[in-house]
Amino acid sequence: MTLPYLLSLPTHGSAATGWLTVAEAPSLPFEVKRTYWITQVPPAQVRGRHAHHTLEQLLVAAHGTVHLRIRVPGQAEPSCFCLSSPTQALYLPPHCWPEIEFEPGAVLLCLASAPYDAADYLHE
Amino acid sequence: MTLPYLLSLPTHGSAATGWLTVAEAPSLPFEVKRTYWITQVPPAQVRGRHAHHTLEQLLVAAHGTVHLRIRVPGQAEPSCFCLSSPTQALYLPPHCWPEIEFEPGAVLLCLASAPYDAADYLHE
Repeated sequence: MTLPYLLSLPTHGSAATGWLTVAEAPSLPFEVKRTYWITQVPPAQVRGRHAHHTLEQLLVAAHGTVHLRIRVPGQAEPSCFCLSSPTQALYLPPHCWPEIEFEPGAVLLCLASAPYDAADYLHE
Repeated sequence: MTLPYLLSLPTHGSAATGWLTVAEAPSLPFEVKRTYWITQVPPAQVRGRHAHHTLEQLLVAAHGTVHLRIRVPGQAEPSCFCLSSPTQALYLPPHCWPEIEFEPGAVLLCLASAPYDAADYLHE
């Protein structure tokens, strides 16, 4: 069973020019087939709460701060992560159940290993 | 000569749950091979100022507001765009020269049609 883990993405720039972070093979654990981003989530809302049979994802707080509480099969306690840097990604393997909360203004960028497939979702 | 144009990306959600915007074939004009994002650009900084021989890009203001002034071959005046919605993308064809300015906190997400290739850049 692969566990969720954090990775640093290649980043170029400076405080004077701003920062450019790249998601590109071969520095990623999979080839990206779909990208989506989640915005304007009210503070009381919990997103996620589903898992995937096969989908792998990389999650990045492109802006602001996102809190994740992830249930992993075989682990008694959930794993907790706080994403607040656009240069850091959380690898989310299949069969993990995240609960995701957004601080105001946070933007969560998601890079996924496959196109959308309703049959890949686990809801219970 | 293809000109830059705006397109709306498929978006799901509500004010109560937040919004999820998807970049995925076949709703895009090309297959995405590289994703990068630019953050923390000081207001006085102008980014861009280069073109590409073949690269196509989609630019999205994932957070905040980004201003673009784009020189297009054969056009006397530059085309100006203001990106401020995470559901809207600007298609940037090859041989266009953007100047990009960021309002404070803005995040520019870029989806590119090819992996990084230094030989594809035009700097003059």
